Amino acid sequence: MNRRRKIYEGKAKILFEGPEPGTLVQYFKDDTTAGDGARHEIIDGKGVLNNRISEFVFTRLNGLGIPTHFLKRINMREQLIKEVEIIPLEIIVRNYAAGSLVKRLGLEPGTQLPRSIIEFCYKDDALHDPMVSEEHITAFGWATPAELDDIMSLAIRVNDFLTGLFMGVGIQLVDFKIECGRLYEGDLMRIVLADEISPDSCRLWDIKTRNKMDKDRFRENLGGLIENYREVAQRLGILVETDNALTTGPRLVQ
Amino acid sequence: MNRRRKIYEGKAKILFEGPEPGTLVQYFKDDTTAGDGARHEIIDGKGVLNNRISEFVFTRLNGLGIPTHFLKRINMREQLIKEVEIIPLEIIVRNYAAGSLVKRLGLEPGTQLPRSIIEFCYKDDALHDPMVSEEHITAFGWATPAELDDIMSLAIRVNDFLTGLFMGVGIQLVDFKIECGRLYEGDLMRIVLADEISPDSCRLWDIKTRNKMDKDRFRENLGGLIENYREVAQRLGILVETDNALTTGPRLVQ
Ligand SMILES: Nc1ncnc2c1ncn2[C@@H]1O[C@H](COP(=O)(O)OP(=O)(O)O)[C@@H](O)[C@H]1O
Ligand SMILES: Nc1ncnc2c1ncn2[C@@H]1O[C@H](COP(=O)(O)OP(=O)(O)O)[C@@H](O)[C@H]1O
Ligand SMILES: [Mg+2]
Ligand SMILES: [Mg+2]
Repeated sequence: MNRRRKIYEGKAKILFEGPEPGTLVQYFKDDTTAGDGARHEIIDGKGVLNNRISEFVFTRLNGLGIPTHFLKRINMREQLIKEVEIIPLEIIVRNYAAGSLVKRLGLEPGTQLPRSIIEFCYKDDALHDPMVSEEHITAFGWATPAELDDIMSLAIRVNDFLTGLFMGVGIQLVDFKIECGRLYEGDLMRIVLADEISPDSCRLWDIKTRNKMDKDRFRENLGGLIENYREVAQRLGILVETDNALTTGPRLVQ
Repeated sequence: MNRRRKIYEGKAKILFEGPEPGTLVQYFKDDTTAGDGARHEIIDGKGVLNNRISEFVFTRLNGLGIPTHFLKRINMREQLIKEVEIIPLEIIVRNYAAGSLVKRLGLEPGTQLPRSIIEFCYKDDALHDPMVSEEHITAFGWATPAELDDIMSLAIRVNDFLTGLFMGVGIQLVDFKIECGRLYEGDLMRIVLADEISPDSCRLWDIKTRNKMDKDRFRENLGGLIENYREVAQRLGILVETDNALTTGPRLVQ
């Protein structure tokens, strides 16, 4: 499928050398993991859907002037991105209590938080992505205080946009995770949004039915992951050409 | 031992109503716990030593102009303190890697940190005092950003003093935990240091031998807790009148 040099293979995506210096090709796999890779399944067509949904979101964020690594989608599973120096943090923005915050603070799942809360986890599967604070991040030099300020402003802008986008299609944005990187342009360095934004990296609940439309379907063994991801794409008005594994050919959703 | 009204009984201390409004009596028990109370033993004489060591430290902090709740020691187990509105945080200052940080970030115990790191835990035994960040603290209203600034300045000053104090007697201050409270004086409110500072709340290693002289002796079943606490008091030049349970009468150490 790809004759380019492989740079990195992660749990859900592969990075290949891009056509120009400073670019990469991000390939979306069907691999679905939980517990830092402890559980692992192949879910046919997930990569195709995430590639399309992430393209959709990043294109609109670029349009809003929020800097991202995204250049363009190449095909069903690949997108062209700018290579960045990834900051080893998972930046989590939470609007409602879910997941680890529920356990950590003993909250009722779905409770609206007093305000949006940004959390940082140190990206290290072996350590299970431990939560860290600004103190750890700056002491260990993972990001400077100025970079953290940029990251937090960016995270808030992304949250504002995504909250509105999903609300418009009847979906509650419970929380999401982003990654940021340093983009070097000549002498300048900017913090940009990298990685992906998809139902793999967001918690999305149907506003009316409270149905979960995100990777929690896999984490909690609820089944129907692809159907729900496709529903998210459909509601966003995305034309989804699903894999042959799923349908007999390209298929117009909506 | 005390005919005053009991206000609160914690794991290691009891608070009684004080002689004047706005004051409390803090009574140091011999109860020693680990794992948020999961393990529990009575270690004869620990309360007496902690009362003396904490008196020593708080007196000198007051002298340096660092505001604390401490007024005076009353007897072997009791001290008179100002009542404050406790901020429900354990404020941890770390100079070297130990305890939970070792596990969280996969560090070698004893590694010097790039700089002192302040951590916050939400004081809630049932939740096992979960680590929280400034975001959680301000979002849930446990402290305001201005209060957090005061708390962090105070924590740094305490760390500077304690590092020097212990270094002077051949002890390395690995980390320690403090609690702060709001002291209302008329229309004014100040953040002051509360609770205790003792080998129960510090990690203290002998600089030459690396011997542990703190509550890790209990946590790690090393034995000899009292002997080590007494050694800390002794090195600080504190006259220790230990319990009759330990000696036949008041005893001049050093
Ligand atoms: N623009 C970019 N430049 C360089 N690396 C990136 C960029 N965007 C994302 N990455 C990294 O590529 C990897 C994407 O693959 P993924 O399967 O998510 O990996 P992981 O298992 O490490 O999360 C991640 O490690 C991510 O940090
Ligand atoms: N000046 C003060 N005013 C009010 N409460 C205090 C003050 N100093 C300490 N405290 C509280 O008193 C209790 C001391 O007892 P302790 O055994 O340490 O309790 P715990 O098991 O809750 O840690 C703690 O809950 C502490 O927060
Ligand atoms: Mg990833
Ligand atoms: Mg206590």
